[in-house]
Amino acid sequence: MTGYGVVRQDGTKLTALDYGCVRTDSKASLPHRLLKLYRELSALIGRFSPDAVAVEQIFFNRNVRSALAVGQARGVALLAAARADVPVLEYTPLEVKQAVVGYGRADKCQVQRMVMAVLRLPETPAPDDVADALAVAVCCLHSRATRRRWEGEGA
Amino acid sequence: MTGYGVVRQDGTKLTALDYGCVRTDSKASLPHRLLKLYRELSALIGRFSPDAVAVEQIFFNRNVRSALAVGQARGVALLAAARADVPVLEYTPLEVKQAVVGYGRADKCQVQRMVMAVLRLPETPAPDDVADALAVAVCCLHSRATRRRWEGEGA
Repeated sequence: MTGYGVVRQDGTKLTALDYGCVRTDSKASLPHRLLKLYRELSALIGRFSPDAVAVEQIFFNRNVRSALAVGQARGVALLAAARADVPVLEYTPLEVKQAVVGYGRADKCQVQRMVMAVLRLPETPAPDDVADALAVAVCCLHSRATRRRWEGEGA
Repeated sequence: MTGYGVVRQDGTKLTALDYGCVRTDSKASLPHRLLKLYRELSALIGRFSPDAVAVEQIFFNRNVRSALAVGQARGVALLAAARADVPVLEYTPLEVKQAVVGYGRADKCQVQRMVMAVLRLPETPAPDDVADALAVAVCCLHSRATRRRWEGEGA
């Protein structure tokens, strides 16, 4: 399962245009599951023509099997962005928390509440992967906004 | 770097049609490196129209970072096969050694020498990733041949 969130920025206002997750049939072969993920992500990129795709940098303390599995899906996601010529920006979990909550050691619930507030969502997007994806998108737009301000663009 | 080998089977005779490795610029962004890998593997699949793509199942004892990195490249490789509608077959390192050398605990040099002999190559394909890829291809054809014989196809 791969969560995604599509967020538009108008001035300081952020709006969630779409969010959800791509689920694949656990009984299907790995290549077909990756193909489904690729097609759904490519369709989303085609539909929304985002200025950037933001992904979380992954640090695994867990087992190596899950790193391999996540890597396979992540490779396909990055490829979908590259083939659509959309730049990919990576953020560490620390950067996401700092950008969204203003505090790098914020817990998952604090991040979720802030994502709901910033995007004016009526309820917490479930499952967690969806809320996480929206948090990365919010982080990306905040960071880009910050960077633009620093660089004096549009100032 | 990703090794590949293209092997044709005529009766009991195996011939290496092409082998080598896809190298990507380590200074390029990860999405662009994955895009290059995807394009080169897709071009190979398009050029040779293989009946199957064989890949090694990976077991990592090593660090989680490399599992993630290998996973990303592997996901893209599996996707290239799936998009071309070519079935993907996976073999464990044990199966490769057994099929190529006839001995599951064979060492790398034994596998390389047998690959050279079976494919009548004048020298060991370098780097190791290329020889490994050819070994997986040889394993796949031997296993498929075996399976066909078992299943009584063409008998």
